[in-house]
Amino acid sequence: MNRSFTIPSMTDHTFMLVFNSVSLTFIALVATTLFLLINHVRVLPKYRQSIVILALVNFIAAYFYWKISGSLRSAYTSNTKFDESFRYLDWILTVPLLLTALVKSLGLPRKKRLELIYRLVPSALAMIILGYIGDETVGTGHKLVFWSLSCIPFIYILYVLFIQLTRALDQQISSVVLLVSRVRILVTATWTVYPVVYLMPLLDYNGETAFALRQCGYSLADAAAKCAFSLVIYRLARLNSANDSPEFAEREGLND
Amino acid sequence: MNRSFTIPSMTDHTFMLVFNSVSLTFIALVATTLFLLINHVRVLPKYRQSIVILALVNFIAAYFYWKISGSLRSAYTSNTKFDESFRYLDWILTVPLLLTALVKSLGLPRKKRLELIYRLVPSALAMIILGYIGDETVGTGHKLVFWSLSCIPFIYILYVLFIQLTRALDQQISSVVLLVSRVRILVTATWTVYPVVYLMPLLDYNGETAFALRQCGYSLADAAAKCAFSLVIYRLARLNSANDSPEFAEREGLND
Repeated sequence: MNRSFTIPSMTDHTFMLVFNSVSLTFIALVATTLFLLINHVRVLPKYRQSIVILALVNFIAAYFYWKISGSLRSAYTSNTKFDESFRYLDWILTVPLLLTALVKSLGLPRKKRLELIYRLVPSALAMIILGYIGDETVGTGHKLVFWSLSCIPFIYILYVLFIQLTRALDQQISSVVLLVSRVRILVTATWTVYPVVYLMPLLDYNGETAFALRQCGYSLADAAAKCAFSLVIYRLARLNSANDSPEFAEREGLND
Repeated sequence: MNRSFTIPSMTDHTFMLVFNSVSLTFIALVATTLFLLINHVRVLPKYRQSIVILALVNFIAAYFYWKISGSLRSAYTSNTKFDESFRYLDWILTVPLLLTALVKSLGLPRKKRLELIYRLVPSALAMIILGYIGDETVGTGHKLVFWSLSCIPFIYILYVLFIQLTRALDQQISSVVLLVSRVRILVTATWTVYPVVYLMPLLDYNGETAFALRQCGYSLADAAAKCAFSLVIYRLARLNSANDSPEFAEREGLND
């Protein structure tokens, strides 16, 4: 895997913008990891796996942001190549885990859970691998072909989340259904940033602008798709826990 | 985001003063993080989130103080630029979290809590972003315009804390009301330091004095607004826990 390239020459101002967006996402990921590790015991045992998985997602992403930050700094100061493959290594691990955590937080029967995971995880892998191949190929035409191919599993994931998940949720109470629909909107909104940002180097921007838009876009999308997503899933798991056990709701003060 | 600049030439004495104020705040933040992590289980579950959020606030701030400390040292010894944007990255994450933790520690019903958070968090973001733009613009006139604009959400935050919060607290017992009024005085006193310190480079000081006053001022204000504030909120959450549950008060020896 090799997505290393010489970064375009840019002003200190642009570099700091990119670098700070990476730093901000890094510390947000670390803080979210800590939050989830501390609080994973504050949901019923059946939802704990979901929160632990999300803690690991944030931890893994934080590690790769640490590497990106170092690679970015040395690419700028000593003209070494910037290694963007860290982003793909991150996604190939974390995106399937994110979807698994989402499904596990819903409190569905095991059979339905597995059914959803078997659809979502292979699609996520296909989406990322096709995106990676597109980034690796040379020529705008080829890149656009792989971009379009990568959008197919993405649209399939949205189909599963919007259509099949709704069917699976027909026996849940309304506050859960409401929160799940918010999760779907969050996933749709934040995940759509990736294919848009992906196209930046293909648009008619100069190298500096395209690079900055792409890196800042990925960083902010990662912060939303990992940190904000994790916190919504935590809230969902708390809500499901309170619904499953009135005693839990009482103890945790979730009744007011 | 870029607030990097060459620091003014200064004596070793002045540099050490600035550097030590940063080191002092750094270790106070780390110690407060540990204190809150250890003690977050010593309040009732409904107040725990507030203490965990404060632990993360201190953790995030400690991370940025670590970066500030490194940037300051290399700016002094090897003439690289000092990067002040770490302060803004810190505030943009921690100030909304501080206000959220304060509201969550009061034991208000969920509806009132959300009402306060929806007013306080956007105001805090507006305050910091306007302050940042002011720091970025060139010319005393422009800086003063953004300084004034940034004071508007600050005054609104104080209005919410002093007027609306008092109404929300009308059913609380007197010891809680007393502690909340102390929290408000602490917030007003420490947060007022920021707009004052902000003006330092605009006053007729020489570069060295202005730089030192500004950096020491921010460091000490951060120690008060994060460490001291967190400890008062912890005390408030303990008091509320004891009021809610006589059993908890007995167990924790809070009746004497």
